[in-house]
Amino acid sequence: MVGSIAYDSVTSPVGNVEDALGGSAVYAGIASSFHGRYLSLGKIGLVGVVGQDFKQTDIELLESQGLDLSGLEIAEGNTFRWEGSYEGDMGIAQTHDTQLNVFGEFDPKVPKQATKPKVLFCANLVPMLQMQVLQQARGSRLSMLDSMNLWIEIARDDLLTVMQSVDLIIINDGEVRMLAGDDNLVRASRKLISMVNCHTLIIKKGENGVLAFHNGEILALPAYPTENVVDPTGCGDSFAGTIAACLASASGPITKSELRDALIRATVTASFTLESFGTSGLLSLTIERFNSRLQQFQDILS
Amino acid sequence: MVGSIAYDSVTSPVGNVEDALGGSAVYAGIASSFHGRYLSLGKIGLVGVVGQDFKQTDIELLESQGLDLSGLEIAEGNTFRWEGSYEGDMGIAQTHDTQLNVFGEFDPKVPKQATKPKVLFCANLVPMLQMQVLQQARGSRLSMLDSMNLWIEIARDDLLTVMQSVDLIIINDGEVRMLAGDDNLVRASRKLISMVNCHTLIIKKGENGVLAFHNGEILALPAYPTENVVDPTGCGDSFAGTIAACLASASGPITKSELRDALIRATVTASFTLESFGTSGLLSLTIERFNSRLQQFQDILS
Repeated sequence: MVGSIAYDSVTSPVGNVEDALGGSAVYAGIASSFHGRYLSLGKIGLVGVVGQDFKQTDIELLESQGLDLSGLEIAEGNTFRWEGSYEGDMGIAQTHDTQLNVFGEFDPKVPKQATKPKVLFCANLVPMLQMQVLQQARGSRLSMLDSMNLWIEIARDDLLTVMQSVDLIIINDGEVRMLAGDDNLVRASRKLISMVNCHTLIIKKGENGVLAFHNGEILALPAYPTENVVDPTGCGDSFAGTIAACLASASGPITKSELRDALIRATVTASFTLESFGTSGLLSLTIERFNSRLQQFQDILS
Repeated sequence: MVGSIAYDSVTSPVGNVEDALGGSAVYAGIASSFHGRYLSLGKIGLVGVVGQDFKQTDIELLESQGLDLSGLEIAEGNTFRWEGSYEGDMGIAQTHDTQLNVFGEFDPKVPKQATKPKVLFCANLVPMLQMQVLQQARGSRLSMLDSMNLWIEIARDDLLTVMQSVDLIIINDGEVRMLAGDDNLVRASRKLISMVNCHTLIIKKGENGVLAFHNGEILALPAYPTENVVDPTGCGDSFAGTIAACLASASGPITKSELRDALIRATVTASFTLESFGTSGLLSLTIERFNSRLQQFQDILS
């Protein structure tokens, strides 16, 4: 797994947090590891960069989650920082400040023993860096990537190129519309699939659930309905990290029912991220609480 | 069933239509009758008002659908007219002109033989008129109503009063948030339920599906994913009319699985309304096409 590692400062209608451990690889990594423990996946390798200001306690926290940090570079300078806020229904983050810091010079190196994982997940990151990782490593079952609107705006061609190199893409509904230039989500999705030739496209719709296209078939799920929305940061990453873990637990072509089960588990995982600032909702998750909410969600679905 | 009967002029990105037969009672009535035929419900009574300009061919069309028009008043003046347009993802209608015409003086009278239907459905209409109907008639199994943002803005107290007189409310997500004064849809829904004390609240979310609260339980469904969005006018009404018909086909307390089945059929019905201007998508619907899409939607859900 590759992605960003950050210190985030977030304000939402219910409070704020400063310099909280975050970033796409952190949320996705913790979520993947949580599920990996119960799916007997073994350690999940994390490739990323932090600065010299990165706290030793955060290194220990990531290791305690079962992540293999041999691909983590500690570079001269400061860790990537993001500052943002959410308002109203908290559907969209407003970015106030982004400091790339050590990301400006990052040259990702995948450790030799990690070049053939079952699933390679490029979490949200500069598309060119995702490409550098894909040149060093491939998932034996699946390579997948997540992205964000910023890269569509400033690195659209790079993003489309890297998308052509993976099997499964996870992005949100607005991003599919932007990439395909079509307001109709179903048409836009089919266009994007033919533009990049992936077998699976998973579209995150936040509080409106998820729509997925898989080998010509469609899957759709509502979100888990939650009253306790605290901080949406990392929801999409923990959603995607859960999918990566679930799809790493079997072999052969991905089936529709396997994908549906992964989407359900990813939805439930993201609902825990949403309920606390930073990674604390994920970190305090137990398999008992997960299974209880999974059952609740299954009841809502059927 | 009571509601508006109108001539609508609609512009969408794919074309336009002028003075098309529309209105909440028309869409809901045609959808109800379609399902009523296969559920052996008998004639569905329609209470409403039209002007002297209302075409005889439209009277015949409504009768040919199996609607009982003994509650239809033909008043001096012109039929209600609405002019609107849709842009972008076509989620929200822009109203350009509303001419109440005969609705300004409408005094609904429910024919004696229609005062005890199995289900009484007050489709979107001035809340005070819905109340006048509820004072004359009640559904023996269920009374339900639909509404719209306009009435929250200009007749909020009347709307809350009439909501307290029904068992089931169907409105959209923005309207629930407005009524409850809460951006979180789940919290807003629970607030509204306690404000009006209904046993079922169905929240239409357009292309994002439906969320329902039923005796403390939650149901959620995605929308039917369609590429061919032509005119969303009447989708909500045909959705609600289908629910009315489905819930009129059984007795006793409404079960969760019965409600879920009604929501699924309502979603599929609305998807046909969406694909044509005016009522033509609904009118050309056959049970074979309905069942085929119902099966497709079931495949997407499971």
